[in-house]
Amino acid sequence: MGTQDGIQSCRTVVCEAPVNIAVIKYWGKKNEDLVIPLNDSISVTLDTEHLRARTIVSLDPTSDGVQFSLNGKEETPSKRFMKVIALCKSEALRQGSIRENDTTLGLRIVSDNNFPTAAGLASSAAGISCLASALKAVYDIQGDISGIVRQGSGSACRSVYGGFVRWHTGHAGDGSDSVAQQIRPASHWPELRVLILVVNDKKKDVSSTSGMKESVDTSDLLRYRADFIANARCEAMTAAITDRNFEKFAELTMRDSNQFHAICLDTYPPIMYLDDTSKAVINLIHAYNRKSGRILAAYSFDAGPNPFLFTLSENLQSLVELLRLQFPSANSSFLRGLTDFLLKSPENVEYGDILNPVSDSVQYIIVTKAGEGPKTSVNEVPMSPFC
Amino acid sequence: MGTQDGIQSCRTVVCEAPVNIAVIKYWGKKNEDLVIPLNDSISVTLDTEHLRARTIVSLDPTSDGVQFSLNGKEETPSKRFMKVIALCKSEALRQGSIRENDTTLGLRIVSDNNFPTAAGLASSAAGISCLASALKAVYDIQGDISGIVRQGSGSACRSVYGGFVRWHTGHAGDGSDSVAQQIRPASHWPELRVLILVVNDKKKDVSSTSGMKESVDTSDLLRYRADFIANARCEAMTAAITDRNFEKFAELTMRDSNQFHAICLDTYPPIMYLDDTSKAVINLIHAYNRKSGRILAAYSFDAGPNPFLFTLSENLQSLVELLRLQFPSANSSFLRGLTDFLLKSPENVEYGDILNPVSDSVQYIIVTKAGEGPKTSVNEVPMSPFC
Repeated sequence: MGTQDGIQSCRTVVCEAPVNIAVIKYWGKKNEDLVIPLNDSISVTLDTEHLRARTIVSLDPTSDGVQFSLNGKEETPSKRFMKVIALCKSEALRQGSIRENDTTLGLRIVSDNNFPTAAGLASSAAGISCLASALKAVYDIQGDISGIVRQGSGSACRSVYGGFVRWHTGHAGDGSDSVAQQIRPASHWPELRVLILVVNDKKKDVSSTSGMKESVDTSDLLRYRADFIANARCEAMTAAITDRNFEKFAELTMRDSNQFHAICLDTYPPIMYLDDTSKAVINLIHAYNRKSGRILAAYSFDAGPNPFLFTLSENLQSLVELLRLQFPSANSSFLRGLTDFLLKSPENVEYGDILNPVSDSVQYIIVTKAGEGPKTSVNEVPMSPFC
Repeated sequence: MGTQDGIQSCRTVVCEAPVNIAVIKYWGKKNEDLVIPLNDSISVTLDTEHLRARTIVSLDPTSDGVQFSLNGKEETPSKRFMKVIALCKSEALRQGSIRENDTTLGLRIVSDNNFPTAAGLASSAAGISCLASALKAVYDIQGDISGIVRQGSGSACRSVYGGFVRWHTGHAGDGSDSVAQQIRPASHWPELRVLILVVNDKKKDVSSTSGMKESVDTSDLLRYRADFIANARCEAMTAAITDRNFEKFAELTMRDSNQFHAICLDTYPPIMYLDDTSKAVINLIHAYNRKSGRILAAYSFDAGPNPFLFTLSENLQSLVELLRLQFPSANSSFLRGLTDFLLKSPENVEYGDILNPVSDSVQYIIVTKAGEGPKTSVNEVPMSPFC
């Protein structure tokens, strides 16, 4: 591959790709077809150790179709899935790494996530960036693929890089400069911790794709945010990340999560992702920070029910102790991930008096950190009808 | 009174004043001291038959102080209470209806509400407009007193008039043209019905006075709403009321309630008045309207937990039947006020399949309509030490 002769071997590529959580939110497109956002956004890429999509892609010379399974179940590939495949093929053609007749080679795609797909943890974002990263290796595509991923699933383009990532809305009408760029790698801020509270939630959420379109169509406040607030916040957030200034990072993160949900509420009919559990988390974090006299933790909510929290490793234990008291649970694996510390017994927990416990509203907590971008490994065998 | 000789008789004035519910919301002052709002607002004055404050004011020649009782309990009059008294005295002096030495006459003030004060039904607004209306009669003040009431409690100034009322922010730096004006009397739209859902709520709310100040200080979206959205909505709402166009009235009411709560959420730390019961009401009304193919009902939420609903008399029964199924209650007086209709048995209720019942979250429902402004009656006896 990558030669004038096109694909000469059968490749199997295994790719693991991360989830990302936006700290300055993306909500609304200025171009629906090209998926060009109204404003820049910034996210933290999470460690694939705790949350990852995995995709195995093999070329299938015996077919010209796409076979796809997700978490062990055969599925019909979605439109956005097929779009990413088509865009990868045409980019590879353009770069000359495959030839026209290679594009008819079939694909076998096997995907799985190491977290519940239904938990609304941006699994589609991870899945789409995972697919594109795998195809990049399969088709020998050079350079940035975030523009391709963007067209598959907007926010997924930020999962193409590790660490702290900014997705630029860009200026080109064709979206060619609407790409993701790394602000800093994960190693820049090793003390940062991210907690995902997986909540018990049976409600069907409004999908972010249709929700943001409704906001663009009906919210008077969205355009103002996009034009006058969000990009300035991206500048401030970039500075906070560069300086590792947790208090600034945390305040901006909370303000922007709140503003995003304010825009949702200003949509008609309103979109309401926050519920009483979200409110309990928000109030708890503000009470914790107020009592501490400085900002030790931040929350962020996406277009789903699960709260994401940020803190520094030095404050992780006290935050987790508080959460365990606030959200009592009989779950024996309530805490998962980076929890190599000993929790105090409840009566010794500071801040205990700011609590207003609600049982069983949080199923479990995943403690993780910022991590690297997609990782691929390639297994090559000579092209044959049996590969 | 009203003569060059000042107060010649002892008056006892009984005043009943209404509650009002804003359909275009007031949130934020441009002048804290003078209580000048950032934008115009519009409200519906509710019938005093179902919700009213009552205040009895007598002059007390034996004292120069203020004696005050609320709902049968002696209380220290609040700052805003004393401010309204001082403003009424100086307006009466300016108009010449009392003389300087009359201002030292004591006042006995007895107030009560015919609804639970704690239910957060704008009792302070009704109370303040009731006090000022009573003092207007006691001191023989001529003309509009909404400017005085405004300085006691902003939104209370809209309770000075019946029907549909607009509070203008005005242009004068001293607030002299920030007054309430009637758009149309209650008789203009006799079919309009207002439902108040009194919810079970133990949470302490952020007071509107401090909440709106926090929003002015921290919400980027508030200024935009005040400068570019709210006044235009007042124009559209005035037209909807004038035309008795329920669908326009209802949509604007819902959009503006949502935008007000969006601004609250954009405040830092966020102010969250809506809870899961509010969400259930919002979703129910949108589902009811969607299923009906047109807008038959609207919701509005103030800085408190109780939902206000609007509908026309012809749709009242179907809405009440729906609410009774959505919020099952064992309360034998669940329905109060204008409920002179027979409810169908639950199995015959249309729209039953859009329900997702939640028991005991609504205590009871008051059905009322638009009503007139404050009513005063005066009892006069000759001035003596015993009056």
